Amino acid sequence: MAELKTERCTACKKDAPLVSESEACELRPQIPEWQTNVRDGIPRLERVFRFKNFVEALAFTVKVGELAEAEKHHPAILTEWGMVSVTWWTHSIRGLHRNDYVMAAKTDGLLAADS
Amino acid sequence: MAELKTERCTACKKDAPLVSESEACELRPQIPEWQTNVRDGIPRLERVFRFKNFVEALAFTVKVGELAEAEKHHPAILTEWGMVSVTWWTHSIRGLHRNDYVMAAKTDGLLAADS
Repeated sequence: MAELKTERCTACKKDAPLVSESEACELRPQIPEWQTNVRDGIPRLERVFRFKNFVEALAFTVKVGELAEAEKHHPAILTEWGMVSVTWWTHSIRGLHRNDYVMAAKTDGLLAADS
Repeated sequence: MAELKTERCTACKKDAPLVSESEACELRPQIPEWQTNVRDGIPRLERVFRFKNFVEALAFTVKVGELAEAEKHHPAILTEWGMVSVTWWTHSIRGLHRNDYVMAAKTDGLLAADS
């Protein structure tokens, strides 16, 4: 199976497919630190990243933002002292697309590049 | 009355005073766009800033972050496509200190500097 983090986001319209349960089960092991949480009726992939201070947290936020812009798929990023919470979902289909799993894996990759 | 945005944050310990109701009434007119919302039992100053795209939102997040670091007082900043939600409160006193009003006014100042 191809590594998620090496995939690119695909263009995503309103009729794009939600990730099926079996596909989700297949993809999950590649992003073990992410939780699937339902907020406002929409399932979302969420992970909290911890840092030593505010400056490091903000720097990570910028990296995630640059990645998002490059892939034209944008998350919610909550920046706090020593902590960044990243949430991926696909607005147009009000749920999780394969793109979101790809972006979660790529986000993990940004962290690995730091350490 | 001195303008809030020209003040600096003061060092803030656990016994620092919460903003009194009368002081809040006095300061509020200087930050009319901010809401006081209670979350997890803690009153917080919150404002949503709107932008044309993700890049502009992220740029504003960075400015707010740099301001926060300069004043050693750190908010929660939620960055989304075209939108940044900034929340100020004082962790050590679990509520609103004058510093938070100062930082809200300074945050507004960042926006003014953009336009």
